[in-house]
Amino acid sequence: MNSGQVDSNEVREKETERGKRGIVFTDNSPFATLKSVPISAVKMNDGFWKARMEVSAQAGIPSLYRLFKEKGIFDNFIRVYKKGYAPRRGPFFTDSDVYKWVEAASFALQSEDSSRLKDMLDEVIDLIIPAQDEDGYLNTYFVEEKARERFKNLKVYHELYCAGHLFQAAVAHHRATGEEKLLECAIRFADHLCKVFGPGKRDGFSGHPEIEMALVELYRETGKKRYLDLSGFFLDQVGFASLKEVIGHAVRAMYLACGGADYYAETGREDFWESLTRQWESMVKTKSYITGGIGSRHSGEAFGAPYELPNEGAYAETCAAIGSIYWNWRMLLITGNSQFADVMEKTLYNGFLAGVSLSGDRYFYVNPLLFSPQSLFSNQTPPPWNRGGYGNRMLVSGRREPWYDCTCCPTNSVRMLSSIPGYFFSLSKEGIWIHLYDNCSLDWHLEDGTKFSLIQRTKYPWQGKVDIEVYPEKEKDFSLFLRIPGWCKGMEALVNGERVSPKLANGYLKVNRVWKKGDRLTLNLKMKTEVMVSNRRISENRGKVALQRGPIVYCFEGVDNPGIPILEASLKIDKDKGSLVNLKESYYKDLLGGIVALKMDGAIPDPSELDSPLYRSFEEERSCRFKSVSLTAIPYYAWANRKLSDMTVWIPYAL
Amino acid sequence: MNSGQVDSNEVREKETERGKRGIVFTDNSPFATLKSVPISAVKMNDGFWKARMEVSAQAGIPSLYRLFKEKGIFDNFIRVYKKGYAPRRGPFFTDSDVYKWVEAASFALQSEDSSRLKDMLDEVIDLIIPAQDEDGYLNTYFVEEKARERFKNLKVYHELYCAGHLFQAAVAHHRATGEEKLLECAIRFADHLCKVFGPGKRDGFSGHPEIEMALVELYRETGKKRYLDLSGFFLDQVGFASLKEVIGHAVRAMYLACGGADYYAETGREDFWESLTRQWESMVKTKSYITGGIGSRHSGEAFGAPYELPNEGAYAETCAAIGSIYWNWRMLLITGNSQFADVMEKTLYNGFLAGVSLSGDRYFYVNPLLFSPQSLFSNQTPPPWNRGGYGNRMLVSGRREPWYDCTCCPTNSVRMLSSIPGYFFSLSKEGIWIHLYDNCSLDWHLEDGTKFSLIQRTKYPWQGKVDIEVYPEKEKDFSLFLRIPGWCKGMEALVNGERVSPKLANGYLKVNRVWKKGDRLTLNLKMKTEVMVSNRRISENRGKVALQRGPIVYCFEGVDNPGIPILEASLKIDKDKGSLVNLKESYYKDLLGGIVALKMDGAIPDPSELDSPLYRSFEEERSCRFKSVSLTAIPYYAWANRKLSDMTVWIPYAL
Repeated sequence: MNSGQVDSNEVREKETERGKRGIVFTDNSPFATLKSVPISAVKMNDGFWKARMEVSAQAGIPSLYRLFKEKGIFDNFIRVYKKGYAPRRGPFFTDSDVYKWVEAASFALQSEDSSRLKDMLDEVIDLIIPAQDEDGYLNTYFVEEKARERFKNLKVYHELYCAGHLFQAAVAHHRATGEEKLLECAIRFADHLCKVFGPGKRDGFSGHPEIEMALVELYRETGKKRYLDLSGFFLDQVGFASLKEVIGHAVRAMYLACGGADYYAETGREDFWESLTRQWESMVKTKSYITGGIGSRHSGEAFGAPYELPNEGAYAETCAAIGSIYWNWRMLLITGNSQFADVMEKTLYNGFLAGVSLSGDRYFYVNPLLFSPQSLFSNQTPPPWNRGGYGNRMLVSGRREPWYDCTCCPTNSVRMLSSIPGYFFSLSKEGIWIHLYDNCSLDWHLEDGTKFSLIQRTKYPWQGKVDIEVYPEKEKDFSLFLRIPGWCKGMEALVNGERVSPKLANGYLKVNRVWKKGDRLTLNLKMKTEVMVSNRRISENRGKVALQRGPIVYCFEGVDNPGIPILEASLKIDKDKGSLVNLKESYYKDLLGGIVALKMDGAIPDPSELDSPLYRSFEEERSCRFKSVSLTAIPYYAWANRKLSDMTVWIPYAL
Repeated sequence: MNSGQVDSNEVREKETERGKRGIVFTDNSPFATLKSVPISAVKMNDGFWKARMEVSAQAGIPSLYRLFKEKGIFDNFIRVYKKGYAPRRGPFFTDSDVYKWVEAASFALQSEDSSRLKDMLDEVIDLIIPAQDEDGYLNTYFVEEKARERFKNLKVYHELYCAGHLFQAAVAHHRATGEEKLLECAIRFADHLCKVFGPGKRDGFSGHPEIEMALVELYRETGKKRYLDLSGFFLDQVGFASLKEVIGHAVRAMYLACGGADYYAETGREDFWESLTRQWESMVKTKSYITGGIGSRHSGEAFGAPYELPNEGAYAETCAAIGSIYWNWRMLLITGNSQFADVMEKTLYNGFLAGVSLSGDRYFYVNPLLFSPQSLFSNQTPPPWNRGGYGNRMLVSGRREPWYDCTCCPTNSVRMLSSIPGYFFSLSKEGIWIHLYDNCSLDWHLEDGTKFSLIQRTKYPWQGKVDIEVYPEKEKDFSLFLRIPGWCKGMEALVNGERVSPKLANGYLKVNRVWKKGDRLTLNLKMKTEVMVSNRRISENRGKVALQRGPIVYCFEGVDNPGIPILEASLKIDKDKGSLVNLKESYYKDLLGGIVALKMDGAIPDPSELDSPLYRSFEEERSCRFKSVSLTAIPYYAWANRKLSDMTVWIPYAL
């Protein structure tokens, strides 16, 4: 079914070399400030992210591979070219999960030259390609009698969404391996789309965005401008320029925004930029959790109204957090403004990372900010006279799963973790940008081609000190741009032990000098436990606080607080200083993969209070006895890795 | 299609006289403590409920009659016997709404002998009856080609639910008018059900309970025990005895519990009683709003987990509140325990009554405890790439509607309001029970037949003093049982001006003596504004209070607090006394139909604070300036009768 032909009249404008392009390749984008640094140029050393990447590559990626086999998801491809091989299984968008896995494995290959991974990847790609139709169409759901329905219902079915994930996978695979087979498959399908859709051809857009950003990246990889134009066509069909806030299905909103940002980076369309900034403001000012989680409504997996951010009822889908990271990364590449990196970092360490187990092979779909196993009892026994009716509240189990019927979050999570090194650095004419901090080394070049390497040494995110050694191939005048995180209230920087006066531009400390081999830059970011409050309009959080230390948002989990009904506890805050009482911040090497846990004074009601009525008078409540206790908080991302217990991010305080 | 025949071998065990039976007729129920007093025996005088009943009878009932005509809901009956008359319109359960309306009109006829109402009622009943099939089956959805699907999918379709509403309407109509035509129609259908369902016949139960209580009442009206047995059969099929908590769809849970209670009142089945008390405890202790509203989840219109009681996200369907009143009324009749009357009263004045506009012809489906018009802006413009996906959050508009596509709440609301007088009094061997307080008179008899009348004079619910004059036809030794509401912290009672020592039994003050004509009993219920708090497990309400005065729960509505961002305000509470500061309670005759409004001191943030970030440090927040203001609260039931503005029941406090 596969013609194996690529249009021979077309010459790729640029050849790429293996491992030389970043995840979002903005090097030739006229409206981007920053250029990409590929994953392969960054080596993660022992530290926070390396541990997570390793379990994901060694447990997560192979586990999904096995589950695809077990659930017949690979077979969906085979059955297209082997009649009667197997029945089609899973939802109509299962192809996209395989493509996301291919992308994840391709990213992982840039970090580690694993033959085991390469073999799996080759096997899967070789399963996919023969399923392509002669005209370039590829989707395992719309085959046989359903082939007649291709492109008939773009709003409901995810053909363009699946196509987009194929394109992203193909680009990632090409960048990782230099091999062209999957890229050629993507090009054939993209060319088919260009024949079907566009001005004067068929109208329409995808009900689930994704194709928009994928087409721009395929344009960047191949130089074929028609892909960029088709992306713009779809974005205009949606009416992207007129969107005023983030709204509706959160993952879709994020992916669409990514497409809009990518298109802007290439074209500078002003109305797109205005739409992007309006949407971003609405998200960051009114529709985000403190974890960076977004999309508060279970119903429709959607953004709520401004300030509608329930804690127990939060949806905050893992995929939506990933989508926000993708979008903010693009906004950062366009502007070089750290406000986008702040959202990205906050979401990486909290809203996203909570979605993945410490073992790397289990995932949350929904990420509540308050959880009680007690809530489950009602969920588990639907009454006999009721026909379902719980909606997707069923998903909040407090247990991460290796797989979901709609398994977007697992595949997205391994994809995100494999790509982490790609978000650490950027390049501009002026020098090197450092967005994230962790033990790692960079082996790359300056914009003029001067070879350049760098080593980061730090205990980030547990400590705020970052040591950086730079190794330009020769003495060279350029700048290092060091992101000063939004959470940081004080910092100092030293070059070779001497303090430099901080010059902040767009949230980055710019250190310009003639750098030579072995120069050391030390960044001291003041890191302390911050007591955070939320805007009064988040009604549920009035009178409550959350704890944040550096980029890490904390939570109180029952398992660390034995005998304490954590959902009925309150923190003590020193009335005069406004600070926690008896705060102790300690690093526990063996707890939850190594974390800083926090201890502080709090109070719980007398046990006799536990059975108090649902409502009673203030006077009655005032006569209650309370007991002082010490409370323990752990990073939110690490919750639900032990036995099921109560958990809350926001906790009431008493002065 | 209607055979017009009633099984002539059956003789009704009891004849009823017009206007002589209560709404739930427990006079012959072996396991009920209290006997019913019919609506017709109670005359409401100018006061709180009379005003609501009048607008409902004069505006609500006729408005629904017009809307049934306009929407083709009556035509659904006519088209059954006039081929091609009209297409079928509305959801598959529209018959039930007509039956509920018939029941409402029948109740109203017991209060007021209105020929206009009687004419409407006759017209509607004469439309219904010919639609009955020869075998007794009656449902306008399962006709023509759909007739084959009768009773095929009881869990989804509402055939037994509609049947139940027909039976209730028929019983109410018979009790109100003494006419038999609709009752005969109901009997024919019930006999058909008895032929189809039961041990050794067809299994099954209704996905939407209602038939269970209706069959028991039809048994009470006709004496045909097979109806009681069929009710028990359905209840056992559902597994009623093993239910451990209220769970799932709230209206369904309430109606099922009503059926279980009715069946218990007749049979004394101990396992049913245990199930009823377990369910009731779980509802009252963990799953009710302070308004009495229940069913907190939009998703599935369902009860949430224990303590899952979001304010803005509350579903709290008007029908569920009504269902709770029905159930608690049955529990009260069984036990004579005021804890059930407390829930009933709280729900009547708050959770239910908020569902009806002061004009009596507009209704809420959903009753949130916090509302902001700002939330609507996001709801009204679904994004182009999103396929719906808001679920029923769309229903929360802050505006009551005269009709819904699923118009259960409007018809249930007029039914509830028409039946109010039936909930005021009961009878037992020992005497007369007074459950509710309002200006009214009772003209009835004691259990031994001694004629007896009584006049209540009060400004309840605005004042706690109730004057009662009793008129037994002759001097007689019996007791008056006066409910001492759960909200009341202090009371005194005087007979002919002399204090009596209060003897409380099951929450009722029992005043036993030889009563003679003109004896006066004065009850002084201490009524003051109570500052209420909720159980700590309702996370959202931590640090917040709600105001309650007598049975009335208050709310803060923007329209009464001009220039005050009410959702960002807080109350002042005197640290030493634990009370509101500068509280003023005043009756406003012309405001919202006459209410006591509350004024007290509070604080709002400086206007510069309105644009504060979503999250910031406690220290930053502490430096905010606040402004003292006077805040106004109105009864929750009266909200949303003026222009759209913010509203909240729970409000943070500062000591």
